[in-house]
Amino acid sequence: MRIHIQNPESDPPFDFSWEQWQAAVARAGDLGAGHSVTIGRTKADCAAALHDAEILIADIAAIRAQIPLQAPRLKIIQATVAGIDGLAPFDWLPKGVALWTNRGIHAGKAGEFGIMSVLMLASRIPEFVTQQRAGQWKKLYGSVVAGRRLTVLGLGALGGTSARHAKYFGMHVTGVRTQEKPHPDCDAVIAATDLETILPTTEFLLVAAPLTAATRNILTRERLKMLPRGAGLINIGRGALVDQDAVCDLLESGHLGGAVLDVFVPEPVPQNHRLWTTKNLIISPHTCADDPNTYNPQTLDTFFNNLRACQAGRLAPTAVDFTRGF
Amino acid sequence: MRIHIQNPESDPPFDFSWEQWQAAVARAGDLGAGHSVTIGRTKADCAAALHDAEILIADIAAIRAQIPLQAPRLKIIQATVAGIDGLAPFDWLPKGVALWTNRGIHAGKAGEFGIMSVLMLASRIPEFVTQQRAGQWKKLYGSVVAGRRLTVLGLGALGGTSARHAKYFGMHVTGVRTQEKPHPDCDAVIAATDLETILPTTEFLLVAAPLTAATRNILTRERLKMLPRGAGLINIGRGALVDQDAVCDLLESGHLGGAVLDVFVPEPVPQNHRLWTTKNLIISPHTCADDPNTYNPQTLDTFFNNLRACQAGRLAPTAVDFTRGF
Repeated sequence: MRIHIQNPESDPPFDFSWEQWQAAVARAGDLGAGHSVTIGRTKADCAAALHDAEILIADIAAIRAQIPLQAPRLKIIQATVAGIDGLAPFDWLPKGVALWTNRGIHAGKAGEFGIMSVLMLASRIPEFVTQQRAGQWKKLYGSVVAGRRLTVLGLGALGGTSARHAKYFGMHVTGVRTQEKPHPDCDAVIAATDLETILPTTEFLLVAAPLTAATRNILTRERLKMLPRGAGLINIGRGALVDQDAVCDLLESGHLGGAVLDVFVPEPVPQNHRLWTTKNLIISPHTCADDPNTYNPQTLDTFFNNLRACQAGRLAPTAVDFTRGF
Repeated sequence: MRIHIQNPESDPPFDFSWEQWQAAVARAGDLGAGHSVTIGRTKADCAAALHDAEILIADIAAIRAQIPLQAPRLKIIQATVAGIDGLAPFDWLPKGVALWTNRGIHAGKAGEFGIMSVLMLASRIPEFVTQQRAGQWKKLYGSVVAGRRLTVLGLGALGGTSARHAKYFGMHVTGVRTQEKPHPDCDAVIAATDLETILPTTEFLLVAAPLTAATRNILTRERLKMLPRGAGLINIGRGALVDQDAVCDLLESGHLGGAVLDVFVPEPVPQNHRLWTTKNLIISPHTCADDPNTYNPQTLDTFFNNLRACQAGRLAPTAVDFTRGF
C-alpha cells in the first residue's frame, strides 16, 4: 500500500522516525512488507503525499482540511490520538474512508498515573503542596488505600487499567459505564444512568471517560456536591466532563479534599486563571497518558493490528464507532 | 501483668483508646486476659503508673527521664515508634528492661508512599508542581516505570514493601543492605559497602534505612553526584541519611530531576528555609508512614506478638538489637 506518515509540525518527542517504522514492520511480519512509505512534516509534504496516499498515519487535527480536497485514493486514516472529540463534526471525512484511533496505547502510562493519583490523594499530597507553597510545616495524616472506595467513570483503557492497579492495592472498586455489565477489575459496575447512586459513598472519583454528547458535563456541580466531604477527584479524561469552576469552589471550601487534574477547559490553562492558585489541586499539563518511549511503537503496532483485521474481513479493533462517538 | 499505656501529651490522632485496647485483647486470645491496665496522658499519670507498672506502652521520648527513677518493677517497654535514633544514647534504659519497637507496622502506608513517589517522579509531578507555582503551562512528558531501575537503600519494612510494589509495576529493583543476601522482591541485592557501584545506573533512589552510626550521611554530596542526570530521589528514612544541602543544590542545578522527601534536618523545617522554595521538590511533613486508622491496632498486635514470643522463651521479634542500633 502507499502509506504516508505525517509528523506534527512542532512536537519533536512524538516524531515518527524511520527506525521506528522499520522496527514496527519487523514486528508485523508478512503484513509489513511491500509498502511504499513516506514521512513528512510540512503542509506541502502532506499535500504532495496525499495525491496518491492510500493510508495516512497522522495527528489529523492540523491537516484535516486538506483531506477531502487532496486525497483521491485515501482509504484509511490511522489517527495518532485516542480521543477524537476534537475532530467532530466529521464532515471533513470523505465517505468510505475508515478512521482508526490508537486507543489502548495510553493504558500503561495513564493507568500508572491513575493509581498514582489515588495514592497521592490518600497520602494528602495536594494538601502538602499547598502547605509547601505557604512555607508551612503542619503534620497531616493520610491512610492506606486498602479497603477504601474508588469509583472509576469510564472503563476503557485508562479507567480499566487504573481499576486493575487499585485492586492490586486492595481497594473496593466500582466502575461506571454505558451499560451495567461486569468488568474483571471492578467489584461492581453500574450504568452511567445510575451514577448518582454511587457518589455519596465514593472516597475517590477517577474520571476516565471519552468526551461525547452523552458525557459532556456529566459531573455537574450538583453531582460533585453529592461526594462526601473530603473526597478526592482525578480527571484523566477530558476537562469538559466536569464542571471545572465547581471543582475549584469545592476545593476552596474544603468539600473536596484534593484533586489531581490532567485535563482542563481551556488548554493551555491561561495565565492568571484561578486554577493556578486553587488550593489542594495538582495540575498536570495533559501529558499523563503519553510516554514518548512507547507512544509511536505502540501506535504503529495498533495500525498493523487494524490492518490485519481489515484484510481478514473483520472490523478494525480501533475503528471509530460514530454512533457512540469514540 | 501490670500494663500502663501512656498517650502522647498532644497528638490526638494517635491516642490509644479503651476500645482499641479491648479489640487488641480480643485478637490476642489467651494472652490478652488477666492484665491490669491503665491509660494516661500527663507526667503525673505516668509517674503514678510507673510506681508498679511491669510493662509500659508509650512513645518513650518525652518520658524517658522518668523511667530509671520511678519504675522499680518495669520489665518491658513497648515503644510506639519504629525508629529509635531519637532515643540514643540508651543510658536512661535500666539494665534488664527489654525495649521493643513497633517496626513493621509502617510497612503498609510507607510502602504505598514509596511506590507513589516513584510513580510521581516518573510522571514528573515535582516539575509540574514547580511550574504550577509559577502559573506556567508547559508540556513535559514522563514515562512508564516498567523496566526502569530503582535502587532501594534499606530493606526493612519500608524498603521491602516499596520493592514489592515496584516489582508489581515491572521495575528492575536493586536492594542495598548491610549484608549481600537475596531479597524476594529485589532482582539483585548488594552490600552497603558497594553502594557506589549501583549509583551511576540508578534512575530512582529510594532511601528507607534506619539512622545509625553506620548510615548517617551515607548519601554524601559526592555520592549523590554519582547518580545520572535526571535521577529521582525519595527519602522516607531519616533526614540525616542524606546531605540535604547537596540535594537542594542538585535539584536547583537540574542534576536531580526531582525529589520527594518526608524527612528533614531539622524538623519541623524552619520558616524561610531554602527547602520550601527549592525547585522540583515535594515536601511531606514526616507523616508518610503513619495511618491513624491502623497505627495503634497494629502496634498493640505487635506488642502481643512480642509477648507471645517472650513467654515461649524466644526473642521478641521487634526487640532492639543494640549492636546494630535498631
